[in-house]
Amino acid sequence: MNLGIVIKVLGKLLILEALLMIPSLLIALYLGEPVIIPFAASIALTFTTGYALSRFKSQSNRLKAKEGLSIVATGWLLASVFGSLPFIFSGLVPSVVDAFFETVSGLTTTGATIVTDIEILPKALLFWRSFTHWIGGMGILVFTIALLPTLGVGGFQIFRAESPGPVTDKIVPRIKDTAKILYVTYIALTLLEIFLLKLGGMSWYESALHTFGTVGTGGFSSRNGSIGAFDSTYIHLVISVFMVLSGTNFALHYALIKGKWRDVVKNPELKLYLGIILSATALIGFNLILASQVEVGLAFRDAFFQVSSIITTTGYSTVDFDQWSTFAKAILFVLMFIGGSSGSTGGGIKNIRILVLVKLVKREVTRIFHPRAVIPIKIGDKAAPREMVSGITSFFVLYILIFVIGTLVISLENISLESAASAVAVTLGNVGPGFGSIGPTETFAGFSNFSKLFLSLLMLLGRLELFTIIALIAPKAWRNEV
Amino acid sequence: MNLGIVIKVLGKLLILEALLMIPSLLIALYLGEPVIIPFAASIALTFTTGYALSRFKSQSNRLKAKEGLSIVATGWLLASVFGSLPFIFSGLVPSVVDAFFETVSGLTTTGATIVTDIEILPKALLFWRSFTHWIGGMGILVFTIALLPTLGVGGFQIFRAESPGPVTDKIVPRIKDTAKILYVTYIALTLLEIFLLKLGGMSWYESALHTFGTVGTGGFSSRNGSIGAFDSTYIHLVISVFMVLSGTNFALHYALIKGKWRDVVKNPELKLYLGIILSATALIGFNLILASQVEVGLAFRDAFFQVSSIITTTGYSTVDFDQWSTFAKAILFVLMFIGGSSGSTGGGIKNIRILVLVKLVKREVTRIFHPRAVIPIKIGDKAAPREMVSGITSFFVLYILIFVIGTLVISLENISLESAASAVAVTLGNVGPGFGSIGPTETFAGFSNFSKLFLSLLMLLGRLELFTIIALIAPKAWRNEV
Repeated sequence: MNLGIVIKVLGKLLILEALLMIPSLLIALYLGEPVIIPFAASIALTFTTGYALSRFKSQSNRLKAKEGLSIVATGWLLASVFGSLPFIFSGLVPSVVDAFFETVSGLTTTGATIVTDIEILPKALLFWRSFTHWIGGMGILVFTIALLPTLGVGGFQIFRAESPGPVTDKIVPRIKDTAKILYVTYIALTLLEIFLLKLGGMSWYESALHTFGTVGTGGFSSRNGSIGAFDSTYIHLVISVFMVLSGTNFALHYALIKGKWRDVVKNPELKLYLGIILSATALIGFNLILASQVEVGLAFRDAFFQVSSIITTTGYSTVDFDQWSTFAKAILFVLMFIGGSSGSTGGGIKNIRILVLVKLVKREVTRIFHPRAVIPIKIGDKAAPREMVSGITSFFVLYILIFVIGTLVISLENISLESAASAVAVTLGNVGPGFGSIGPTETFAGFSNFSKLFLSLLMLLGRLELFTIIALIAPKAWRNEV
Repeated sequence: MNLGIVIKVLGKLLILEALLMIPSLLIALYLGEPVIIPFAASIALTFTTGYALSRFKSQSNRLKAKEGLSIVATGWLLASVFGSLPFIFSGLVPSVVDAFFETVSGLTTTGATIVTDIEILPKALLFWRSFTHWIGGMGILVFTIALLPTLGVGGFQIFRAESPGPVTDKIVPRIKDTAKILYVTYIALTLLEIFLLKLGGMSWYESALHTFGTVGTGGFSSRNGSIGAFDSTYIHLVISVFMVLSGTNFALHYALIKGKWRDVVKNPELKLYLGIILSATALIGFNLILASQVEVGLAFRDAFFQVSSIITTTGYSTVDFDQWSTFAKAILFVLMFIGGSSGSTGGGIKNIRILVLVKLVKREVTRIFHPRAVIPIKIGDKAAPREMVSGITSFFVLYILIFVIGTLVISLENISLESAASAVAVTLGNVGPGFGSIGPTETFAGFSNFSKLFLSLLMLLGRLELFTIIALIAPKAWRNEV
């Protein structure tokens, strides 16, 4: 392996992270909060380590699959370790493991927290906490469009096969253009939401924080009551809509701006995604009305918010949905697995994969009646390549497998099976809060250190679309056996 | 469709079922129980209906896929309706829906019950109840080897590709021979277990009943405490071992008798199946010792019994495993999905499919490092045909899909999510008892009529390997679209 290039790239990543901590330091300085030294020390340590690593010499600049995988996996791990320094140095988070968990949760845009009282933390620290969502959300876009194609991993194949607009089959020669378009869209969404939230009466500071949590589909809030702390239907709706937008393929936003309405309207993943949101909102809304005589408007507002939050894997809440009926909770549980769209900041299995999987079942039924027919799986008008279909089924199997093994591991905590299963579903799917002991009014603080580290691994696994990490930790035989 | 042949075959099926009720009538006569008239009436009604249908004229005797599917699905439905007559006529079961549920549960070898006090029922009725397991277990063998090949359905492809010994690629020309071998094995297992249980101090009657429940992997008992009512380690072990044997591919029993040890030892599905049983028993055993200071011997005896019972989808219990730790329950929950081996009477997803699915994941990892390699999925030494692999992934996706939709439907009962999910898992997997409100000391009596009928459908779906029924109820477009 070309270790030199790996270390060099990792060094540059740390330098970038150090720079990204500066806004938080400035806020601390401006407000005179007692986290000035922790931030200064974190920046200094991260920058010098990064600089030292970036001076590493490498024979060549060519990346092979192995190096690409190592950079992605180690990069996320290092960024999480150094990103947790402000928490550690501040002394305001119970332990090093807690600080690491919180940072992984931030960067992977999960939003699961170990902080039991958020509102007593310094504003600069909360800014950094939420800013990791924004960085992570952007990072996803980079990885998706820049690194994954060189690895030929399923996730990117989907993105390529599916995306209308800027991302075509020949994406590699113009990665930079594509990245630029996506960044501009991401930043535009960010600025627009900050502005709209400010309009609704939030401070600039809280508008920014909650926007980071929304567009990155993260879910960290500055309030213990999450979005429920803001008693404003306007704010609830703005955040709902922006969660849905952030869980949509970013290439579609670009297509919209370019006036390519038909591409957007005909997009099969978008149809499925919006269809699920609508159906789930309707089912939960009616259920709320029947089960607890909530006012019709409020029922659908709350249903829409929670559905958007969970399916996009954001994890904000306006009500304690853990108190909802079993039926409503069961729907949310399913949404935790479905997740957002390909090419979005949302996690989970993703709608395009669900679409292909359902088509596989349909094809098998057709085959019973036409055993000799060769039937391609179509997405919209295009036939999906065989490797893509097999990549999707493997992904699905692995996702369920990790969910099952994860639940077994977490069930050792002796919380209820529902709590354990949802803890795994929400970390693997990068959602945030789940049910029972990790419901919207609870935190992950009660877990053992082992479980916190294990759940951190699940967040990284989910965020990097499973195979990046599995490939690195898989037995050697799996790699070489051809 | 050639309706004539379908009706004719269904008629013969009912005649057979009427004959199979005779032993129960004889027991009622011998014991002078008040169910003589109910049984006589059931036999008369079933026989005359069957006779009338069997006189139907058909132009040809050729079965096409559509006819085959209709016979299998309608056959199981009719057998369940007529099989429930003794319960209905006896007046000892609360409602017609309950009688239907109990009979579907018996024939599909599920063992989920709506009877809250089993021990007050007449012995002849309990005999019929358990005998449906034995009939269903045998029926599975018939369908697997005789009907499914003509349909080209995935389930049979597995059986064919996997089975060493009597079942080879050219099974169709000698269905009768294969059927004979399997029946002889089934009957031999039955007689052996009855004898061994009698040796352990059970009456002939209870030995027979519990043997029907074991070899059919059903789970109906004549005791409210299931096998726990028998305070004998010998009996627990005999039933455990026979559950494991009944969840094994019957072709392997035949290979053993023929002295083909190497075929058996090298069988990859058997290795996985036994490996899972051993690991699960060890994990639960140690967990029981650590969690509740149970004596070592008892811990492993109870762990082995419950593990064998759940993975083979039998559903007997010797302890109330719903009181076990979350970890132990989580393991059992996973076993409900794994199920028995192909070509056995066990239900669930089945080990051979799990094996292939894990290999798919492994292949995807290899592909990351060797993107252009063409890697076949191997079972033992043979490469699995592509249609088989795609049939298995479709089966898995459909299984999870039905589980998810089923849980949503059952969660409307407003029981806990754990109870709802396990109710669906144990009916779809033909297991029997689950967790919470349907735990081993509880019954399905509390569900609404709608849920009981829905769960009956799930039992039939699981038993007929999903696609048989899905193909019949799927929209026409799925069939014709090529």
